[in-house]
Amino acid sequence: MIKKVLIANRGEIAVRIVRACAEMGIRSVAIYTEPDRYALHVKRADEAYSLGEDPLKGYLDPNRIVNLALETGCDAIHPGYGFLSENAKFARLCEEQGVTFIGPKASVISGMGDKTQARDSMRAAGVPITPGSDGNLADVDEALELAEQIGYPIMIKATSGGGGRGIRRCDTPQELQQQYPRVISEATKAFGSAEVFMEKCIVNPRHIEVQILADSQGNVIHLYERDCSIQRRNQKLIEIAPSPQLTPEQRQYIGGLAVKAAQAVDYENAGTVEFLLSGNEVYFMEMNTRVQVEHTITEQITGVDIVREQLRIASGLPLSYRQQDISYRGFALQFRINAEDPKNDFLPSFGRISHYYAPGGPGVRVDTAIYTGYEIPPYYDSMCLKLVVWALTWDEVVARGKRALDDMRLHGIKTTANYYQQILSHPDFERAVFDTSFVPSHPELMEYSEKRHPSEMALAIAAAIAAHTGW
Amino acid sequence: MIKKVLIANRGEIAVRIVRACAEMGIRSVAIYTEPDRYALHVKRADEAYSLGEDPLKGYLDPNRIVNLALETGCDAIHPGYGFLSENAKFARLCEEQGVTFIGPKASVISGMGDKTQARDSMRAAGVPITPGSDGNLADVDEALELAEQIGYPIMIKATSGGGGRGIRRCDTPQELQQQYPRVISEATKAFGSAEVFMEKCIVNPRHIEVQILADSQGNVIHLYERDCSIQRRNQKLIEIAPSPQLTPEQRQYIGGLAVKAAQAVDYENAGTVEFLLSGNEVYFMEMNTRVQVEHTITEQITGVDIVREQLRIASGLPLSYRQQDISYRGFALQFRINAEDPKNDFLPSFGRISHYYAPGGPGVRVDTAIYTGYEIPPYYDSMCLKLVVWALTWDEVVARGKRALDDMRLHGIKTTANYYQQILSHPDFERAVFDTSFVPSHPELMEYSEKRHPSEMALAIAAAIAAHTGW
Repeated sequence: MIKKVLIANRGEIAVRIVRACAEMGIRSVAIYTEPDRYALHVKRADEAYSLGEDPLKGYLDPNRIVNLALETGCDAIHPGYGFLSENAKFARLCEEQGVTFIGPKASVISGMGDKTQARDSMRAAGVPITPGSDGNLADVDEALELAEQIGYPIMIKATSGGGGRGIRRCDTPQELQQQYPRVISEATKAFGSAEVFMEKCIVNPRHIEVQILADSQGNVIHLYERDCSIQRRNQKLIEIAPSPQLTPEQRQYIGGLAVKAAQAVDYENAGTVEFLLSGNEVYFMEMNTRVQVEHTITEQITGVDIVREQLRIASGLPLSYRQQDISYRGFALQFRINAEDPKNDFLPSFGRISHYYAPGGPGVRVDTAIYTGYEIPPYYDSMCLKLVVWALTWDEVVARGKRALDDMRLHGIKTTANYYQQILSHPDFERAVFDTSFVPSHPELMEYSEKRHPSEMALAIAAAIAAHTGW
Repeated sequence: MIKKVLIANRGEIAVRIVRACAEMGIRSVAIYTEPDRYALHVKRADEAYSLGEDPLKGYLDPNRIVNLALETGCDAIHPGYGFLSENAKFARLCEEQGVTFIGPKASVISGMGDKTQARDSMRAAGVPITPGSDGNLADVDEALELAEQIGYPIMIKATSGGGGRGIRRCDTPQELQQQYPRVISEATKAFGSAEVFMEKCIVNPRHIEVQILADSQGNVIHLYERDCSIQRRNQKLIEIAPSPQLTPEQRQYIGGLAVKAAQAVDYENAGTVEFLLSGNEVYFMEMNTRVQVEHTITEQITGVDIVREQLRIASGLPLSYRQQDISYRGFALQFRINAEDPKNDFLPSFGRISHYYAPGGPGVRVDTAIYTGYEIPPYYDSMCLKLVVWALTWDEVVARGKRALDDMRLHGIKTTANYYQQILSHPDFERAVFDTSFVPSHPELMEYSEKRHPSEMALAIAAAIAAHTGW
């Protein structure tokens, strides 16, 4: 069993990993850069080491991190999500240095990170993929010719891309000619590779992804799906498990596809297979070879502790569950509370949290690294809290989401919380009918007033009444 | 459906009821006395009214509360637990004034509040009761004679008692002669009635209680049991659902007994039937005709929102579930975090909370009315937070309990949190073998050091090392 883990990450996911380690009797080592000196993951880990003044370099330096792991006696590194989590070179360095990388083998990370290679693997395994190029595109002429065959709209995507970046939609040959060089330029800058490929654009699909777990003995199971269709510019905002929009047959089919995909690449550890759904058609989109931000909602409906399973798998232990042991109950929603101003084009709103009060009570889970007085540094992503709610039925979980968002106090910065209240109150969301066009189709949901909290208003009024009536 | 509820309570249970109302679109009205002006239930309810300077009188004044409900247009009153929740006169006043009392009928409350009447009802219904007196005792001579027949030890109990008060154990005739007048005196002072009865003392039993729900159409279901054996002087400290100490057959038998008990008295709304277990013997102890402090853990394992069901039942709706719809999953523990100093005979430790940080992450639920800066008033009970943890297996839930207790920050007062860490680490607790003798048998668990938080210690050490090594 792993004895000591270096957590190569920050923020709520680092805290999440510290907690799993604590529950398993594993010692945890945090890393941080100076802007994170007072971060919660630093406070909560058993040990913490500074990797310098630069806000980012320390978190992105494979050699330094692996060396620190060796020097502090860690036998494993958990990469979290983002940062080096899908960096095959980092995973390979760990393998070479004899530190367990908590994730799949480096070769699997690179195979899935290369989107055309991933498409090839899936095609070979019989997992449906969107119509598109066989491998990378040679030039814009090939792209134009292929687009005529497939039919517009099409997408040009960076082969090494991910996280919704390096993607352009083209509705006409003219747009394709314009966008093609832009994607190449973006891909080169963001991912260090000029390779791009083409996929047919599935218009207004549902984004459905399946959580899988695979151990080193070849056992692969899925933990059902998440519906991440509520997204803005490819960034997920509210995630739902299970999808309220699948039939039992679709659920079983997609779960089986995900297991097949993982088996095809000898996957090991936790991973997510993302699909696009259009009507009854299902297309493989990509595989995320790491724990995801939204793993929480799968934990809520299945009861499985995914990070715990990651640590067990990396220790060489078999999965704690067979497929038939996995059941799901109720619905879970996750709200990514971002330090952003929805009314101002979601501009980041970093700063000091003057007051934070965690929502609580039945069916509420919070994962965060913030606290009252914490200053959100401007160097990292804007997600500052994950609010998860669970209830037995769809209607109850929607009502609970509204209540819990209302219950939370997060002052000093602008957040997306009020915007999510708007989404929850929309009739289409209430009856669970939405796809990825939901957010762009409803700009009116951003028109809410940043009014004083209703209960505080009522309290003021009640107090005034009380003063007059003598209560 | 009920439209507006007056909450005749304070603290975390009032907040719990506000949340249930909010999720159901029911308007909530809080009451408070002046020491509670800044209490969370006052802040969170839709309306709040002061009932005067005296800390307690307002919460205990049936007429004033019912009048306020009528004046503010409330159609129902939720009594919570404690205060007027088991006061049959209050329930009757509500009935007379046409305000729905969220609980059973006044006659059922008084029938169950009278312990000898409750024993009679259970005996008639075929629910096993402990050997003891038929009805109340006439005098000490009758007591002495009966005790010889039953065999010592025996208990003398106040007929109108509850909450663990008005109870004395007698191991010999001499003790019985001494204690008898004391119980009478205590019963008269605390409950306004000199009636007492005798029960055989079940030595070191397990305390097992079953949550039931009953609607106005005669449907009764149980939500499985809770094991409340970890108690000190009849006060529960840590509650567990389901009991890790029952066989499936025992579980089914006890669940069935509880339903039979509720049916026998035409019970309506949520209630708890408490049993004592000794070996394979099961004895009815009492029925609590209200929501209980520990209803939370039943919610965690079954997914049923008990307060929501209370509000539905009181609205005349049928139960949302049939017995076959109810299943349980995993284990839940509740820690009653009390503002008490275990190292000083659990003396109350009221005062200002200088820093509070809610524990979070997977499987953690918090119900509380405290916040940073909140001053715990000395007039009410010392429970300031309910920390609930859930996990699929016993080992995981115990580990999670330790982690969550460690995760919480509650500074400025002494609490029972560190003492609970000691209990969780005891081998008997870890292997789930304990009865009501656990706490009194292990006074050594109170011998822990109030040391600085280990992670903060480690951080300080790590920082010192880092300063020397140049990290």
